[in-house]
Amino acid sequence: MTKGKFISLEGPDGSGKTSVVRALKEILEASGYDVLTTREPGGSPIAERIREVILDVDNTAMDARTEALLFAASRRQHLIETILPALEKGQIVITDRFVDSSIAYQGIARGIPVEDIWAINKFGIEDHMPDLTLLIDVSAEVGLERIYKAQGQRQFDRLDQESIDFHQMVREAFLNFEKDNDRIILVSGNQSVEEVAQECIAILKDKELID
Amino acid sequence: MTKGKFISLEGPDGSGKTSVVRALKEILEASGYDVLTTREPGGSPIAERIREVILDVDNTAMDARTEALLFAASRRQHLIETILPALEKGQIVITDRFVDSSIAYQGIARGIPVEDIWAINKFGIEDHMPDLTLLIDVSAEVGLERIYKAQGQRQFDRLDQESIDFHQMVREAFLNFEKDNDRIILVSGNQSVEEVAQECIAILKDKELID
Repeated sequence: MTKGKFISLEGPDGSGKTSVVRALKEILEASGYDVLTTREPGGSPIAERIREVILDVDNTAMDARTEALLFAASRRQHLIETILPALEKGQIVITDRFVDSSIAYQGIARGIPVEDIWAINKFGIEDHMPDLTLLIDVSAEVGLERIYKAQGQRQFDRLDQESIDFHQMVREAFLNFEKDNDRIILVSGNQSVEEVAQECIAILKDKELID
Repeated sequence: MTKGKFISLEGPDGSGKTSVVRALKEILEASGYDVLTTREPGGSPIAERIREVILDVDNTAMDARTEALLFAASRRQHLIETILPALEKGQIVITDRFVDSSIAYQGIARGIPVEDIWAINKFGIEDHMPDLTLLIDVSAEVGLERIYKAQGQRQFDRLDQESIDFHQMVREAFLNFEKDNDRIILVSGNQSVEEVAQECIAILKDKELID
């Protein structure tokens, strides 16, 4: 049995997840918790190699099913090399994206049957699901605007080239998951990073994942 | 419907498949056939990128399920970018390895349930199975001896570091597939390349894949 707590943050691009993960780490560490933050795709040396293939802007001929299998491979390696060892040490692991992203992006938005996306991911993660998933919600327009504004700071990758319709589909997919699943809790991303983080901390307390 | 013919060559490492593929191409082209030869993992630009990750000697921490997902991803992309377009043009496609290799290596030899390996590969290849699979059989000892002898010419990769027991398991897996499956025909690899190739040509005629 693992002793740590496993938390994933999900949401459409530009929802501010990455900043929220950083803020959560600071708050939790200030309270004395041992926290590991990580992200997908990537999060371990081999998974980062796979991430490079997935995000390469030259890979425009990549088939949607190839992409889905690469995400599942990267996730498996991230779990084995990074997440499970940290949980065994008793750390709080916070990952920026996990399996729900594949259901939303490769399944619903790209049109591959969701049960097939689940099947290849179950092959990879077996029974290691997050204890809690925080869904940071923001409209597709606000999310894309944030990405475009940030483009000076951050590299424009292949996934950012998707249209606003695609982002809208992703958002609706995430919102539907939240309705059907007690593991997933919705948090509005239309607040400051600090406010989002404080709301997340309150949820972690409510779920008794922290004191 | 595809118009070409889709043939895979399988067998343990050192069975001589690569040389036989080259010989088959020469013989078939001399008879006027339009032939595309290819290989796995790899066989298309994106699939070659995935191949590099799979075969990297530094990737010693790669989990068996990650590896299985990467092979399935590479195979999907190989099928979409290389094999299906060639079949649509009416070519004879000969691939050095296809799905049976994953069942033998990742499934039986690495101990992942075979039905799970089939499931992730069915996700990738859908209904596009070879018309015929030629299984070039050679003992593990002979196969490994050939690999070690060739080491001056060919790069020593991570998969070659497996023990003779592993190769023996792979061989037995392939032989068992052949017993259960009309698609797969056994050819002895304990002959010259030319003799193996001529035996393969006789099988292609017998199966009415060529005149």
